Amino acid sequence: MTIENLSCNRSFGGWNKQFRHASSSLNCAMRFAIYLPPQTAHGEKVPVLYWLSGLTCTDENFMHKAGAQRIAAELGIAIVAPDTSPRGDTVADADTYDLGQGAGFYVNATQNPWAQHYQMYDYVLHELPQLIESTFPVSNLRSIAGHSMGGHGALVLALYLGKNTDSWADYDASLLMRRASQFVPALVDQGEADEFLLEQLKPEALAAAAKISGYPLELNRREGYDHSYFFIASFIEQHLRFHAKHLSR
Amino acid sequence: MTIENLSCNRSFGGWNKQFRHASSSLNCAMRFAIYLPPQTAHGEKVPVLYWLSGLTCTDENFMHKAGAQRIAAELGIAIVAPDTSPRGDTVADADTYDLGQGAGFYVNATQNPWAQHYQMYDYVLHELPQLIESTFPVSNLRSIAGHSMGGHGALVLALYLGKNTDSWADYDASLLMRRASQFVPALVDQGEADEFLLEQLKPEALAAAAKISGYPLELNRREGYDHSYFFIASFIEQHLRFHAKHLSR
Repeated sequence: MTIENLSCNRSFGGWNKQFRHASSSLNCAMRFAIYLPPQTAHGEKVPVLYWLSGLTCTDENFMHKAGAQRIAAELGIAIVAPDTSPRGDTVADADTYDLGQGAGFYVNATQNPWAQHYQMYDYVLHELPQLIESTFPVSNLRSIAGHSMGGHGALVLALYLGKNTDSWADYDASLLMRRASQFVPALVDQGEADEFLLEQLKPEALAAAAKISGYPLELNRREGYDHSYFFIASFIEQHLRFHAKHLSR
Repeated sequence: MTIENLSCNRSFGGWNKQFRHASSSLNCAMRFAIYLPPQTAHGEKVPVLYWLSGLTCTDENFMHKAGAQRIAAELGIAIVAPDTSPRGDTVADADTYDLGQGAGFYVNATQNPWAQHYQMYDYVLHELPQLIESTFPVSNLRSIAGHSMGGHGALVLALYLGKNTDSWADYDASLLMRRASQFVPALVDQGEADEFLLEQLKPEALAAAAKISGYPLELNRREGYDHSYFFIASFIEQHLRFHAKHLSR
């Protein structure tokens, strides 16, 4: 597989890079960003946190705005941020921010016109980690996190790792958490001033599902915080430390 | 003076806000961003760091990408980021990134068509601090920093505080540093992989000027770092701690 380096910026003693490659699962060219912490310069193989971004984002927003590199450099964790959907002139799109390009929802589409390219579940779960682990100085220790659409995607991928999914119920984090029997450690932060809280996010459904299955979900509600990257930046340190703790077990 | 609140995001226990106001020195509407650390919620008056951004930036880039709020919250410092030039349909502009809107260079223009609006030196030195100190819970302790065009602007403003400036020599940081007799503490970081290093930045001229006047300039050269916000984010903590140390004296 050919992989093309698009950018390279030194960051907190490590390197923030972007690459483009031909994705076989998405059937188009895809871009991703990777932060390689300083430990990798000495031949150390580090674990990888996959970060899934929200609607309208690309591989860049989180890497530019979250301030995650500082903590990843300290903890010795690589971060991989894929784009949020397939892209390009041949890829189906829609005139709304929450469907089409920039809005892949980390699912495998089963209907036209989406099925030809929108296979983000397979891309994030299989193709991307294989590419990362065969290309960069990383171990096969993986964890996953995200924001908004990506936070939901991270929960679904973590809760349903490796199974084939073909119905909407398989992509509903609350339903998956309600029937979970294996408990992947899970941490969720929710801003109380989030503009999507009441109509769309419904963290209380996730909490209720966790209660039913006895899932040890840690759910924090943060007074005054909204849906923005200001919120992400304020709490990313605690999330990276949470991942590092479980990745080192 | 009327001042309009445009946005408000909670950030590291404090608030990141944007405002618009009618600027008398620039003769147009201006936007700025302010970070108010958590200490201000308890009635404490905090010092202010003015941050001047580089070419093509607005009041937003630094607040979104530098990760400065985390440290400002810890240190109890407000940060004010003005826009980088006057803006609007009536404001002169040019078809290049380094002249006109987004490229005010923090000087007072003396010739047409620029003189009518481009008075950034007066705006940053006089009008903006007066507005900030009469509107927000801040003290009159001020310091100044910036990046690229804004780093140079910060040096000039700090070295020549309060004098009228009307020739190009008054806006040359190296000339000002060479003839300085009062020493404002100064810290400069320069990336060694900066794409503008050889042709435009010439930190060696600043170092030579400091040597002539005996200026206690701290100039760090950072291997592998470029001109980007990845560079700013990597070293902003050390700069904020430098300012906090001198602001508390």
